[in-house]
Amino acid sequence: MVSRPVRITVVGGASCDTHTAYLADRVGEGIARGGGVLISGGRSGVMEAASRGARLAGGMTVGILPGPSADDANEYVTIPIVTDMGQARNVINVLSGNAVIALPGAEGTLSEIATALKSDIVVVALAAWSEIAGVVTAATPEEAVRLAFEYARGS
Amino acid sequence: MVSRPVRITVVGGASCDTHTAYLADRVGEGIARGGGVLISGGRSGVMEAASRGARLAGGMTVGILPGPSADDANEYVTIPIVTDMGQARNVINVLSGNAVIALPGAEGTLSEIATALKSDIVVVALAAWSEIAGVVTAATPEEAVRLAFEYARGS
Amino acid sequence: MVSRPVRITVVGGASCDTHTAYLADRVGEGIARGGGVLISGGRSGVMEAASRGARLAGGMTVGILPGPSADDANEYVTIPIVTDMGQARNVINVLSGNAVIALPGAEGTLSEIATALKSDIVVVALAAWSEIAGVVTAATPEEAVRLAFEYARGS
Amino acid sequence: MVSRPVRITVVGGASCDTHTAYLADRVGEGIARGGGVLISGGRSGVMEAASRGARLAGGMTVGILPGPSADDANEYVTIPIVTDMGQARNVINVLSGNAVIALPGAEGTLSEIATALKSDIVVVALAAWSEIAGVVTAATPEEAVRLAFEYARGS
Repeated sequence: MVSRPVRITVVGGASCDTHTAYLADRVGEGIARGGGVLISGGRSGVMEAASRGARLAGGMTVGILPGPSADDANEYVTIPIVTDMGQARNVINVLSGNAVIALPGAEGTLSEIATALKSDIVVVALAAWSEIAGVVTAATPEEAVRLAFEYARGS
Repeated sequence: MVSRPVRITVVGGASCDTHTAYLADRVGEGIARGGGVLISGGRSGVMEAASRGARLAGGMTVGILPGPSADDANEYVTIPIVTDMGQARNVINVLSGNAVIALPGAEGTLSEIATALKSDIVVVALAAWSEIAGVVTAATPEEAVRLAFEYARGS
Repeated sequence: MVSRPVRITVVGGASCDTHTAYLADRVGEGIARGGGVLISGGRSGVMEAASRGARLAGGMTVGILPGPSADDANEYVTIPIVTDMGQARNVINVLSGNAVIALPGAEGTLSEIATALKSDIVVVALAAWSEIAGVVTAATPEEAVRLAFEYARGS
Repeated sequence: MVSRPVRITVVGGASCDTHTAYLADRVGEGIARGGGVLISGGRSGVMEAASRGARLAGGMTVGILPGPSADDANEYVTIPIVTDMGQARNVINVLSGNAVIALPGAEGTLSEIATALKSDIVVVALAAWSEIAGVVTAATPEEAVRLAFEYARGS
């Protein structure tokens, strides 16, 4: 097997406040600086902020889209994957990562965390979700990225 | 539009204790007696107990299966739907019901509850999940069925 | 295993001419009279005509829908299954039948025939598709139904 | 919108003869040299040969996998996307490309061609499939790549 880049999935709300966007941006930057590929749902909010952080740091970003067209991807997505499968794309989003970093979000994010845990994929929670049994919590974006790479390399 | 039977989705663990199986069986029976079609994931545990309750009361049951074959359906499923889509079938399971009744389960059940809430489908929780914001709680199987029919008819 | 009704999937165009609608109607009627459950994509054209034939003969019909709502089902669908998965629902449509009957249609129908053949599900072709290697051809709706039940019971 | 690399999907059999593998390898090489991202189903046969050609020419390859694990990807896939959706992943494979190049294959390949045509995505056929209405035929791998880029840039 040739070596592949580590894939880290970032999940969180399609809309988010400024501080959450800052955290997501730092997470994306950290993934890119570590040589990882960032996977997200490819839309707005946390997905866009994390993709922006990764792209501006020279990284590669994949956006797994719910709709029938790549036009819905935010501008920081390098490779849009078009599923036309609505919420079912959340499953692909999660399964495609070696680890998941979860930022604040709503029910869609919760379903992704649950799907990851069911599939024995480590979920690193940042600024939210600490009440969900089974997640690993991080205090800073840097710690979240470090933990995600550690688990991803062990997976 | 001709009238269709109400469809109520029952979610819960693929393995469950005796009391949960009893509750699921009563829920299934209530759905059938009310003229509803019971939708589930078609496998073991809560899915099987609820399907059994519905079938023994003369009802119709649909099982939306994760694997590539109908052979995985429990024996109380009238109509197996074969998805071969793994966990993504949970989304179909939930979207196909006019309302959802959630019994005790693990991460798969949690992902179904989150998916329902995101899609504005009412989730009636029985014997678990009362900590999830947005669910409606029921104290008995009879109340869960009554509430599910009420919401289903309003949807 | 308790016995289940045979499930026969009918595929064909979302729009169709009068003669094709007549054939689809007769196919649906035959499936219902044979005690089978008719599975279709739940929309217009061949799907609607076949569902109408089955319902008017007292049968049960399942419609596996591409969109996010059961409102898209034609009025002859007893049980809508809501996938919100676009064309990917064609795979579920096909896998859920014990046999497939294919009437005239376009690329969507062709993709369903190919998916069935890949999954070793017999495809009985009526009034079209005889050029596709591997399909079984029928000369009349009655023969198509008879062949489909034969293969379904052997599957 | 920032510019993104063109995405070209290559479809064909999971097993193939030496000449088809040669053609697929040249197609992959051409996509990479043109600056495109190669998308495939990520498995063996045509998918592997095309991915090899692209990787050895310094390109980026995405493999959209049917199973639950990235371990099934061939060694020339840079970014595996894990769907666990069986044949339904064929739809994602096709929708994610700006154009499709189809090499010899069986029913799975036929379903992908049909899905592309239904979605108005251009299919360039090489060494097979010229009998399918709506495909564009190419005489050489170089011509196939040239046509695919032309259509992709116009899409």
